[in-house]
Amino acid sequence: MRAAIIGGTGYGSIELVRLINKHPFLEIGSVVSNSQSGSSFSGIYPHLSEIIDQPLEKFDADTLSENNDIVFLATPSGVSSKLVPQLLKSGIKCIDLSGDFRLRSMEEYETWYKHKPADEEYLKQAIYGLSEIYPDQIKSSNLIANPGCYPTATTIGLIPILKTNLADEKSIIIDAKSGVSGAGRGLSLTAHYSEINENLKAYKLGAHQHIPEIEQVLSDESGNPITITFTTHLVPMTRGIMCTIYVNLKEEISTKKIIDLYKQFYQESHFIRVRPEGNIPSTKEVLGSNYCDLGLHVDERTNRLTIVSVIDNLVKGAAGQAIQNVNLMNGWDERTGLTDIPMYP
Amino acid sequence: MRAAIIGGTGYGSIELVRLINKHPFLEIGSVVSNSQSGSSFSGIYPHLSEIIDQPLEKFDADTLSENNDIVFLATPSGVSSKLVPQLLKSGIKCIDLSGDFRLRSMEEYETWYKHKPADEEYLKQAIYGLSEIYPDQIKSSNLIANPGCYPTATTIGLIPILKTNLADEKSIIIDAKSGVSGAGRGLSLTAHYSEINENLKAYKLGAHQHIPEIEQVLSDESGNPITITFTTHLVPMTRGIMCTIYVNLKEEISTKKIIDLYKQFYQESHFIRVRPEGNIPSTKEVLGSNYCDLGLHVDERTNRLTIVSVIDNLVKGAAGQAIQNVNLMNGWDERTGLTDIPMYP
Amino acid sequence: MRAAIIGGTGYGSIELVRLINKHPFLEIGSVVSNSQSGSSFSGIYPHLSEIIDQPLEKFDADTLSENNDIVFLATPSGVSSKLVPQLLKSGIKCIDLSGDFRLRSMEEYETWYKHKPADEEYLKQAIYGLSEIYPDQIKSSNLIANPGCYPTATTIGLIPILKTNLADEKSIIIDAKSGVSGAGRGLSLTAHYSEINENLKAYKLGAHQHIPEIEQVLSDESGNPITITFTTHLVPMTRGIMCTIYVNLKEEISTKKIIDLYKQFYQESHFIRVRPEGNIPSTKEVLGSNYCDLGLHVDERTNRLTIVSVIDNLVKGAAGQAIQNVNLMNGWDERTGLTDIPMYP
Amino acid sequence: MRAAIIGGTGYGSIELVRLINKHPFLEIGSVVSNSQSGSSFSGIYPHLSEIIDQPLEKFDADTLSENNDIVFLATPSGVSSKLVPQLLKSGIKCIDLSGDFRLRSMEEYETWYKHKPADEEYLKQAIYGLSEIYPDQIKSSNLIANPGCYPTATTIGLIPILKTNLADEKSIIIDAKSGVSGAGRGLSLTAHYSEINENLKAYKLGAHQHIPEIEQVLSDESGNPITITFTTHLVPMTRGIMCTIYVNLKEEISTKKIIDLYKQFYQESHFIRVRPEGNIPSTKEVLGSNYCDLGLHVDERTNRLTIVSVIDNLVKGAAGQAIQNVNLMNGWDERTGLTDIPMYP
Repeated sequence: MRAAIIGGTGYGSIELVRLINKHPFLEIGSVVSNSQSGSSFSGIYPHLSEIIDQPLEKFDADTLSENNDIVFLATPSGVSSKLVPQLLKSGIKCIDLSGDFRLRSMEEYETWYKHKPADEEYLKQAIYGLSEIYPDQIKSSNLIANPGCYPTATTIGLIPILKTNLADEKSIIIDAKSGVSGAGRGLSLTAHYSEINENLKAYKLGAHQHIPEIEQVLSDESGNPITITFTTHLVPMTRGIMCTIYVNLKEEISTKKIIDLYKQFYQESHFIRVRPEGNIPSTKEVLGSNYCDLGLHVDERTNRLTIVSVIDNLVKGAAGQAIQNVNLMNGWDERTGLTDIPMYP
Repeated sequence: MRAAIIGGTGYGSIELVRLINKHPFLEIGSVVSNSQSGSSFSGIYPHLSEIIDQPLEKFDADTLSENNDIVFLATPSGVSSKLVPQLLKSGIKCIDLSGDFRLRSMEEYETWYKHKPADEEYLKQAIYGLSEIYPDQIKSSNLIANPGCYPTATTIGLIPILKTNLADEKSIIIDAKSGVSGAGRGLSLTAHYSEINENLKAYKLGAHQHIPEIEQVLSDESGNPITITFTTHLVPMTRGIMCTIYVNLKEEISTKKIIDLYKQFYQESHFIRVRPEGNIPSTKEVLGSNYCDLGLHVDERTNRLTIVSVIDNLVKGAAGQAIQNVNLMNGWDERTGLTDIPMYP
Repeated sequence: MRAAIIGGTGYGSIELVRLINKHPFLEIGSVVSNSQSGSSFSGIYPHLSEIIDQPLEKFDADTLSENNDIVFLATPSGVSSKLVPQLLKSGIKCIDLSGDFRLRSMEEYETWYKHKPADEEYLKQAIYGLSEIYPDQIKSSNLIANPGCYPTATTIGLIPILKTNLADEKSIIIDAKSGVSGAGRGLSLTAHYSEINENLKAYKLGAHQHIPEIEQVLSDESGNPITITFTTHLVPMTRGIMCTIYVNLKEEISTKKIIDLYKQFYQESHFIRVRPEGNIPSTKEVLGSNYCDLGLHVDERTNRLTIVSVIDNLVKGAAGQAIQNVNLMNGWDERTGLTDIPMYP
Repeated sequence: MRAAIIGGTGYGSIELVRLINKHPFLEIGSVVSNSQSGSSFSGIYPHLSEIIDQPLEKFDADTLSENNDIVFLATPSGVSSKLVPQLLKSGIKCIDLSGDFRLRSMEEYETWYKHKPADEEYLKQAIYGLSEIYPDQIKSSNLIANPGCYPTATTIGLIPILKTNLADEKSIIIDAKSGVSGAGRGLSLTAHYSEINENLKAYKLGAHQHIPEIEQVLSDESGNPITITFTTHLVPMTRGIMCTIYVNLKEEISTKKIIDLYKQFYQESHFIRVRPEGNIPSTKEVLGSNYCDLGLHVDERTNRLTIVSVIDNLVKGAAGQAIQNVNLMNGWDERTGLTDIPMYP
């Protein structure tokens, strides 16, 4: 199968290229970048030299459909809402890595993203691609809204406890930390080396656009409307997300029992590794891989559960989960092309 | 005044040397390191070449007292509890940077530090050296228990809101992040470059020895016993601590009012900078300086206060606050020798 | 084929595990660590959780030979010289990643490594595993001395020019820079995070044990005895080596011609990427991959050639080249299992 | 004395502010930034909060002269050549941190900087502010061309050996490595965090604009025209420059004798620390300070001298040397305000 990539010069695209290259059933088809069309891909990214030297193309829905079997959109927010309708009409399936099709509520989208949402018709078709939770809907979908990096780490960490009656749902606090690649390749002072290196920075307090996405999923899974406190931090490293999540427990329960409950919940999920008691994952332990690792600890002094959830933001938080979804859509083993051991150290 | 330093080869000592060197009324006296006595200081730390080439000395309380006017102890926990009694008897004032004299309860010390506490007699004499909160007691003390790095950032961030009736005291969560220099110069895998670089690691969940110290101060200041949830993380940078602190508010109040309240509380405190609304400090903005910067944000959706408190762990979190305490003890302006602008970038 | 790894807890081993796992014809057999035998591998390296949970074994040559088809030795210098004879006798082929079998001269080994060399009998059997230069000898060997990281980057950069008559062979200077993982997992101040982070350090000036190895290869290839000046630096990053190499040219020649000459020399070598004029590779452009990228520039003002050669020290500089050699030994395409695109960013 | 700073929002300016703040005889006067005039300084640089909250001003030569006693220009190249004439006419002394007045040859300037040079009249007035080498000329000057960062480290390292008859002057190679702050605060991909972190990059091979500056000084000091090979590298750290310099020796001489010669040469220079045999400085050992540390090693196998010269690029390589020059111009001890111990770790 030939896979096209739109948004060819961002970090999401480049990670898709890396993963498609090692997938046994996928090959790289068209790579689209309107701003750089005509340039050679390896001219912009020299690490691709002698591997992928093809020129970047201009967007054209029909040509793309003819020459490819599936399309990944790794575009800034507000772009794929315009391209996806054309692509679906031309008969090709779409995996959108941006936020454009993740929120069901058009009002919420406009409030948090500050521009026009996608058309209702397409929002209704879109399936939220949290692979471990919605595999069946993903299988039969033409349009996947691939989850955000923070929402992936957060919801995988929280859903099992919300499925019990143990969590005080008003008490959820997510202290999230991300490497700088999450900010993309666009130049800005907040990704300028000398400003960020040897620095730890909190940003967008209570204002991050991933908040409504997380709340939508958690509310769906819990059955009750959930409002969270969510703080994001920029950590001086390139890749990796850690969400440290706090939930008050409504009754006393041991760390061991919580771990059993999580292991049970994720027993079929190859990419979720629930760590044993006393073993808390760090971000480097999933570097370059599609794993989401979970560490769990009940503080007996306060009867509060701490969940530590780590992913590689560019893999399980973006390109890797997109590939996992393509695997599901095609009835392949969800691990196909994603079996790499994390790169350590 | 001549200042002796015990524990001469650790990062706390080396930072004391840097700060004493620029203090107008202090000069470096004896530097004690039993394990390396006889070696030249600049042989171990070449950045001191041609500045401080004196040999390291063996510990002897009487000689120290004769040749110096004040002693800083920057020793591992369990050491100063043995040295301080001899030093006080020989008539010299002590600033202890370790945890040995911080906890009033001998039981708590033994529980969290896993070895014998200091003698009760000396514990009673010790004054907790949180400079902004206890200046009068510090002035008249012979033995200062200099606060830990995490407790400094945390308590400065929390005390003003605890002094009101606004905080739900059962709801306090501290998500703390530290640079690696906090782990000291002792070799261990958790400070091994290739393990820590490009990695974010949570550690000692609910088990950090600074928990009872924080709870002691917060309970004292609040008037009620306070139990916290406290999680520590290791961030791939050398210096800097950020505590992101969450407190439920018992009534609705705006971010602006909270900021006014904090500015009022710290109006005489030169080293506490309360940032205006929308301005959240990052760790590099206090690098190398004695500042503790505070950012405040009320999340109106959950009526929860987020406090971001940053310090340089080796300055306000250790050597800098020790110098500030010496300033207070001698009736000097608390800023003496500590007026450096943070080093940026 | 089952591949055993001896020296199971070092970074070389862990990288072998990562690469063997993605090799279509190899699987991980025994993992030997005398110091940690009995422990589970993923207990020591949690990134292996649920992937490789097998226990570490004690060394026994016969058991290893029975249960495996090939052995990689990733042990400290001075160890494999003792183990290899037993292994060869038990009938299994060995790839040694240490320096023990690289130098033909026993005197040189003793001078630079400061301990006893391997037995002459085995030194004579050993083939130096610089894959691009000695593919035929490697094919028919039972004992590969896998090249050091610095020698790999240096010799690949220098051999083409030495094969011409253009180079002043007395003028060779190699200014080498390495990430910290090259120092291994053993604890030391020179790999202690706070000492190395934000620091650049020159070390072992004129005294690095890779000097005789480089000189042996260069002299072999040139036909004349070559003596180099070689300086090593530690760079605050985990992976990557750059050798910036300076050679005086005996006649005027353009950068373009030099590049053509190198492209010609390496036209069959899939892992050597000679960059076009004006394009100088950086270490991250080969991260995690088996590539060695070369940038070339003639300074017309001084008629001196500058060669910039970059590798990932743990891949092309260790485990990757070892796999490439196994591919050659088995008559497989040299790229088998090594086709990953570098991880960027 | 009131010191004005022009170019207020760059890293050079911010470092001048840090150093002026701790100078006993200087205070910060006007801070000029045409692009940001009217903004508060601490709004742009929050680390200055409550320390320097004054607004940035527009450039006006007469107002500046009235309100200040000296002017530092920390502007991009091509700017100070236009401002300095106005400032000198209005009667105020100038320290220019850009390259505009460093090259005597107008042709060379145009060749390397690709725009118009300063007027000849002012070029002739300018004194090259390499403090250790030209103290007398600096004393009596109205216009200092403050040296570049690479030229400072390089020339301090080379001048002593060039003053002997030992060096083969055709053989000089400088392998230079810099932290990223040298690239300034302007946004570009080469200072974008995810591109530079965990990466080592060679750039501008044989084309760096500091080459003619270095050659001018070395030729002056040697008495013969000197042409160098100069390669620059970007190292993933914020501050610090290391120049590793190679020179062939015309006769055999021991490392010890070279060190003696250097110690003799710099015996009056407080900021030059010549290290003893076997002791090679690293960049962190001068962090935040005005020191230039030198390590020396003769490779007996090739009779080649290796000189390792380290500075903090923003201090001795820019703002610190500028202050040192002001000290000289005013007849103050050259160390005034510059006695800080390097910040370690």
